[in-house]
Amino acid sequence: MANPPDTKQITLTKLARFNQAFESGAWTQVRRMLNSGLPPVDVAHLLESTPPKERELLWSLVDAEQQGEVLQYLSYDVQTEFLTRMDAQELLAATEGLDTDDIADMLQRLPNAVIHEVLQSMDTQDRHRVESVLSYPEDTAGGLMNTDTITIRADITLDVVLRYLRRHERIPDSTDALLVVSRRDEFIGRLQLNTLLVSDPNITVREVMETECVVIPASLPENEVANLFQKFDLISAPVVSAEGRLLGRITIDDVVDVIRENADHAVMSMAGLEDEEDTFAPVMRTTRRRAVWLGVNLLTAFLASAVIGLFDATIEKVVALAVLMPIVASMGGIAGSQALTVVIRGMALGHVSSSNAQWLLNRELIVGALNGVLWAFVVALVAMLWFGDWVLGVVIGAAIIINLVVAALSGTLLPMLLKKLNIDPALAGSVILTTVTDVVGFMAFLGLATVFYLS
Amino acid sequence: MANPPDTKQITLTKLARFNQAFESGAWTQVRRMLNSGLPPVDVAHLLESTPPKERELLWSLVDAEQQGEVLQYLSYDVQTEFLTRMDAQELLAATEGLDTDDIADMLQRLPNAVIHEVLQSMDTQDRHRVESVLSYPEDTAGGLMNTDTITIRADITLDVVLRYLRRHERIPDSTDALLVVSRRDEFIGRLQLNTLLVSDPNITVREVMETECVVIPASLPENEVANLFQKFDLISAPVVSAEGRLLGRITIDDVVDVIRENADHAVMSMAGLEDEEDTFAPVMRTTRRRAVWLGVNLLTAFLASAVIGLFDATIEKVVALAVLMPIVASMGGIAGSQALTVVIRGMALGHVSSSNAQWLLNRELIVGALNGVLWAFVVALVAMLWFGDWVLGVVIGAAIIINLVVAALSGTLLPMLLKKLNIDPALAGSVILTTVTDVVGFMAFLGLATVFYLS
Repeated sequence: MANPPDTKQITLTKLARFNQAFESGAWTQVRRMLNSGLPPVDVAHLLESTPPKERELLWSLVDAEQQGEVLQYLSYDVQTEFLTRMDAQELLAATEGLDTDDIADMLQRLPNAVIHEVLQSMDTQDRHRVESVLSYPEDTAGGLMNTDTITIRADITLDVVLRYLRRHERIPDSTDALLVVSRRDEFIGRLQLNTLLVSDPNITVREVMETECVVIPASLPENEVANLFQKFDLISAPVVSAEGRLLGRITIDDVVDVIRENADHAVMSMAGLEDEEDTFAPVMRTTRRRAVWLGVNLLTAFLASAVIGLFDATIEKVVALAVLMPIVASMGGIAGSQALTVVIRGMALGHVSSSNAQWLLNRELIVGALNGVLWAFVVALVAMLWFGDWVLGVVIGAAIIINLVVAALSGTLLPMLLKKLNIDPALAGSVILTTVTDVVGFMAFLGLATVFYLS
Repeated sequence: MANPPDTKQITLTKLARFNQAFESGAWTQVRRMLNSGLPPVDVAHLLESTPPKERELLWSLVDAEQQGEVLQYLSYDVQTEFLTRMDAQELLAATEGLDTDDIADMLQRLPNAVIHEVLQSMDTQDRHRVESVLSYPEDTAGGLMNTDTITIRADITLDVVLRYLRRHERIPDSTDALLVVSRRDEFIGRLQLNTLLVSDPNITVREVMETECVVIPASLPENEVANLFQKFDLISAPVVSAEGRLLGRITIDDVVDVIRENADHAVMSMAGLEDEEDTFAPVMRTTRRRAVWLGVNLLTAFLASAVIGLFDATIEKVVALAVLMPIVASMGGIAGSQALTVVIRGMALGHVSSSNAQWLLNRELIVGALNGVLWAFVVALVAMLWFGDWVLGVVIGAAIIINLVVAALSGTLLPMLLKKLNIDPALAGSVILTTVTDVVGFMAFLGLATVFYLS
């Protein structure tokens, strides 16, 4: 009886040995481990977790054949970094033996000239397969699919199917069903392997196949593919052309990658990091990317300052206003981004539609008003006690109520509007929202103060 | 030849008919559609996208047997809402026919008395299965697993396996491999169905089974289960006890749910929405949850105000300071949360370790310093031109450089520290970070201004 291998334990031990070899400069051992000691997926993880200079070194020690395997497991950013520096020869060697969809994936982002060169060097069948996938946009079902489907006809018996399968050396990964096609390659149905294994071998495929199954049009955006997979607990699904011809299939592992990437995208966008996938990107690239976002936010900050500048006379008279004004702006910002996040997420999950958007807006407004009144009281009380001035309390209380209601309004409407204009709500939404809550916050607070103190 | 059904089209048409029936008050039709017209997963989506009052109504129209199916597809929040209002009888009816892991999932969050009652009413075998899953914490492999595994011995031939399978009415969903166990139920290996289908039926299981496969200890946290599944492109994996006994299996569909939930968690946490999963939660519940987060941020806002208060004499003298000070604070906040987000994400993906944390910190510091200097120049220039005062430019420039460097430092170190203290870095990190950048920003700006203007 074999002891079940503790995968995590094995990996940690191997990595520990690797780090040891690396730090002591035992390059022959390092090279050996990179190419046969560690599985490609671990090598990829290692590369992702290594700063640029050492990463270069490690990559140069990975053999050409292994590079292809490792490339698959790298994140988009890091993968592109390596791919763009390889020539057609190296690319061909690296992509040898990989699945069509993985090859297409990698080639897609290279210059057309390079793609052409690599394709020319492939054998005809492989080239046709890759070209087929490449003809679809990257972020659609057609760009995600694999062409390694096993197809069968409907009129044969299950016994024939079993004998046909036995002639194969191996069945492609994640094959949970065989795809049934007509003579003209039109998709008819699916024969699940699980069904095949429990049915009488003498009946025909037609009698047991599924005809009502999830079928994915090649043009479907990858997000919706992910939604379908999650909704119906799919492991694989056929991809068809507009005319119903079978083009390939998508498997759950590709969808999991899509789900993970998109989940990241939302978090990253809200901090203005939409392109920054490589945790260990070099200094200059990082600086440039962050600088752009800082610049955009600086503009909104100057706008807020300009608003404050309108009321400098009031502030000179009542310096307590300068002390308290950030409170109004920040509470508006927090409340606004809560509404924004909930609505963006609701839209992403498909919960929000024109019929229930009104209810959502109403709820956000009420919540904003209720919280506005609650915290207005608290802040007004503190302000009055701190500065011994009840006018200040009234002014700040009113400003907070106004700002929280406006925050709720913008946080809810903004993403809906941006989506209608086909702009990514996460990225643009947070910038615009902060601008609104800052401007409205300062204007309400300082404006009311001017009315009370300067008239 | 059957036309491949366009799933999306069918769903949209059905939903349109449903909405029509609902709005015209055709309750018999609505009830029929809820129970047989629409698939459970669509009914669940409908409920999630409906405001509370109508949701109540719809739920009451769903038959007891259907409720169980629909419950599975609801998000945690909404599911709990319904489950906690059902009595033991209703729960038993609803959970009839569901998979062990789904039943355990639902029961887990109910009061012990209710769980006990429901379990007592089950038949012995089902009860043992559910109890087995319930004995593990919800967010571990043991809590995720299903007990419906098909097990076989190692010494039989593949022909016997095939005949054994044929005696089953159906094979459980997402079964891509049969699990090989010893007489004492110890896990030995896996026999992939794909291997079974291409091999000579006369050889034994032992000759073709995988012994080096991913084996999941029941105590493994669900995040790491998800990482393993994504890393190795798994469809299912066996779950074993500490002694190596087979307990059950985890399938990719459960992992996909985990991945999606965790992805959401990060986004939501950073806006302080960690519990708010139900887009259409009623007003009072939403108000309470948001109020807590606003309260916490109010404390940090008051802290920042206290700092400003220390320098009120300086502001009275140079009112331009009040106009410009939000710029310093906000730039620090933005830069800091960029660093924070990148590091939190890097930690979640397992990229960050003690060996490369130093490099990451160095890079963030350099990026912070470079951007600090760049934007310090820009802002200083604008300030000088706006107010015609070069001292102001110098002061604000210096303050920005200081704040951006501190922001980079805190944004990087904070999540690492919080993780060491076992505190969720996303939630706590953003609050603490804003406090730091606000306090440091105001102190640096107003402090330097005091030195230049008041001495």
